[in-house]
Amino acid sequence: MTLTTGSAPLLTRLAAVLPADALLTDPAELASHSRDSAPFSECGTPAVVAVPRTAEQVAELMTVAYEMGVPVVPQGARTGLAGAANAIDGCIVLSTAAMDQILEIDPANRLVRCEPGVTTRGLADAVAEHGLCYPPDPASWERCTIGGNIATGAGGICCVKYGVTADYVLGLDLVLPDGRRMRTGRDTVKGVAGYDLTRLIVGSEGTLAVVVGATLALRPARPPALSLLAQFPSLTAAGDAVAAITAAGHAPSALELLDRATSDAVVAYGHPLLRAGSAATLIVECDTADPVADLAAIAGLCKESGADNVDAAATPEEARQIIEARRLVSPALGAAAAKRGGAITAFIEDVAVPRSQLARFVGLIEGIAEHHRLTIFTLGHAGDGNLHPTVVFDESDPDEHRRARTAYDDIMAAGLALGGTSTGEHGIGTLKRDWLERELGPVSLELQRGLKRLFDPKNLLNPGKVVTA
Amino acid sequence: MTLTTGSAPLLTRLAAVLPADALLTDPAELASHSRDSAPFSECGTPAVVAVPRTAEQVAELMTVAYEMGVPVVPQGARTGLAGAANAIDGCIVLSTAAMDQILEIDPANRLVRCEPGVTTRGLADAVAEHGLCYPPDPASWERCTIGGNIATGAGGICCVKYGVTADYVLGLDLVLPDGRRMRTGRDTVKGVAGYDLTRLIVGSEGTLAVVVGATLALRPARPPALSLLAQFPSLTAAGDAVAAITAAGHAPSALELLDRATSDAVVAYGHPLLRAGSAATLIVECDTADPVADLAAIAGLCKESGADNVDAAATPEEARQIIEARRLVSPALGAAAAKRGGAITAFIEDVAVPRSQLARFVGLIEGIAEHHRLTIFTLGHAGDGNLHPTVVFDESDPDEHRRARTAYDDIMAAGLALGGTSTGEHGIGTLKRDWLERELGPVSLELQRGLKRLFDPKNLLNPGKVVTA
Repeated sequence: MTLTTGSAPLLTRLAAVLPADALLTDPAELASHSRDSAPFSECGTPAVVAVPRTAEQVAELMTVAYEMGVPVVPQGARTGLAGAANAIDGCIVLSTAAMDQILEIDPANRLVRCEPGVTTRGLADAVAEHGLCYPPDPASWERCTIGGNIATGAGGICCVKYGVTADYVLGLDLVLPDGRRMRTGRDTVKGVAGYDLTRLIVGSEGTLAVVVGATLALRPARPPALSLLAQFPSLTAAGDAVAAITAAGHAPSALELLDRATSDAVVAYGHPLLRAGSAATLIVECDTADPVADLAAIAGLCKESGADNVDAAATPEEARQIIEARRLVSPALGAAAAKRGGAITAFIEDVAVPRSQLARFVGLIEGIAEHHRLTIFTLGHAGDGNLHPTVVFDESDPDEHRRARTAYDDIMAAGLALGGTSTGEHGIGTLKRDWLERELGPVSLELQRGLKRLFDPKNLLNPGKVVTA
Repeated sequence: MTLTTGSAPLLTRLAAVLPADALLTDPAELASHSRDSAPFSECGTPAVVAVPRTAEQVAELMTVAYEMGVPVVPQGARTGLAGAANAIDGCIVLSTAAMDQILEIDPANRLVRCEPGVTTRGLADAVAEHGLCYPPDPASWERCTIGGNIATGAGGICCVKYGVTADYVLGLDLVLPDGRRMRTGRDTVKGVAGYDLTRLIVGSEGTLAVVVGATLALRPARPPALSLLAQFPSLTAAGDAVAAITAAGHAPSALELLDRATSDAVVAYGHPLLRAGSAATLIVECDTADPVADLAAIAGLCKESGADNVDAAATPEEARQIIEARRLVSPALGAAAAKRGGAITAFIEDVAVPRSQLARFVGLIEGIAEHHRLTIFTLGHAGDGNLHPTVVFDESDPDEHRRARTAYDDIMAAGLALGGTSTGEHGIGTLKRDWLERELGPVSLELQRGLKRLFDPKNLLNPGKVVTA
């Protein structure tokens, strides 16, 4: 993929259509834009990082790239976990960082129009000032961008109640690989005019078109939430509790699971409410009309399922403290890793299984950890069966590195065997391309490749991600 | 499109792969399967109506059709309103009527697996026995099929709160035009593995693949609902009330609008609560945790917006009586039409505009009715801006027929000019193909046609619907 002619002609052409300060060629900039946050994923060095400010500039950039046959890799905040934003050698990295404007907040129609580079948090805060809510809340929501959320089909914690990014995208402004512009979707709540190109773009990881604008649906502000913490002597008991909560028709706004290793790490980090040694911990949040009553009912279901430590918040402060346990997972895992020393890397998996298979899947993961002599911290969105087993390993130890890679494959195989999918919300990128092929089968794969060719016949837009052309 | 060789070789080939009673050639059967429920739409006479019982039979049928180059038109219950299920001369009509089994109801994972020919009502009733709910409720829900709902992307009344068919389709079993089988989607709540082929098929009107099975998400049973009726002296006042209800964050499970002509017809039909002469009537239903309080608040907002007749139900019986007003629209329009005499046809439009443009749009429609000296009854889903203006005209009067056709175009143009879409939930079919081209623009249209060619290179599956190849 290295440009045989060197990058001078490319830079000359780009300089004609972009402001000088929108083209970064400093080696440090090129290096820092070479990859997203996924380990184990291949990446290359871009020829240039372009930071356009307008959709017109993106269209001109794409036209130049198309004419010159140079690949383009779109990037948001590079918080992705599948390598979907990884550069390839000699490419143009198209950073949407400078296209970060909220163009219109429309409370009457409960929608917002924005550019792709606005952060998820920035958008959520802005619409909150109008009494509205943009629910999707991926873990990186303070830094990640709406464009990246759309590219990856991002989820989050509250999507168990409120749905994922895809459920909020009404319409898109796009630039196609050849530089032509196109709008998909609509400004109306409902609409079935033609094949659904909007949903085809969501989750396509910037391989079909560049998102230069989005129209997103909003919801009324969420009511105040309360939360509950329940610990169980076995995974089965926790799985039974999740099933009972679901069967009773509750709609928690968070229903998170921590396995033994994860909750013990959070206890060691100093959380005052969690008890060490629990096989499974559930954190449940309700933002219903009467969260006290709903959490009391859920507490009852947890106890009936065998929970031996149930703590329901009666005040917002207690609720905050419970939710803190979920937020402390990341620093607690960091602290646990630091104790071990070495070049410790945390590799966050993302597999979704049918909700009823949750407890069984966590048990299988614990077996895989034991078998490969690894520490795997499993936490995830129990309410929708989407788990993030996190393999913590020493990169400087080749044997442990190899075992971590094998454990990753074993987890994926176990999830698929339980009727699951290889990615619940992080995407395919380069990391899971082989698994996607296994999951889809040959006929679907052929159509997926055909879609890529239809949108990008020269295979220049983020080539090698999702499917190989 | 007439088969030059006659249909004998086709029937011989089909008889080899389908049971004898699955092939209908009686002229009356061919005629009754020639079209769906859309007036103004072209249709032809099929060579044969095939009624396969299994996915394997569908695959074999498609293989025969592909090899012989015979077009295939899938049909559900033919309740569609866009001509999407209309036969073409010499085609095979593929009726899914005999594939009507519910294969599995899975309460733990809140999903159901079914064949395409099961009726929406049949599915809803079956899952209700498990304390679950399949919300989409198109007007024809007692007769229409899940396969038809998926093909058209059907909506309904409660989708203002619960979403449309597309929001419930997790995965599909498909037969491609060449007879190959394929699965899309997943059994998990979340998933982003590859391009979203499931959503591409939903709303594609049987032009890309034949749906032979579906995995649908379910919800907990809906709580008991109460309802309210509010009448307004002006369209603007009703529009203000809808805006106020939305702005206050209410989530009604129905928010329906009747214009003056429609509510007067319902009054004339004998509804005891509606008053004649109101410019606009809203019917609001709430199935929230506390519907009495929520409807009281909504009643207050209606009065503040100028409603001069507000009636909130305090009991389920009163609520039933209010909702009855919506249900009576169809017989009331029939009675109004019968009074006129002649060959009266009701042509139901389907345009969605941004919610804030609702009152303005209804006013424009009243102007169009006056201009063309027609009776147009406008009712619709005010909560999501999706209106169904119904043009009632005498087919035997060529001038009135012509004026009705022109009014239809004028309504569509007015909706698009207000930022709307040419179809909120009924689809494109043959009826709105020209409007789709106007709405999409040339770049999107080119991709839509490319998608059709990708799935159906011989243009044999429901050709001429959605886009021309």
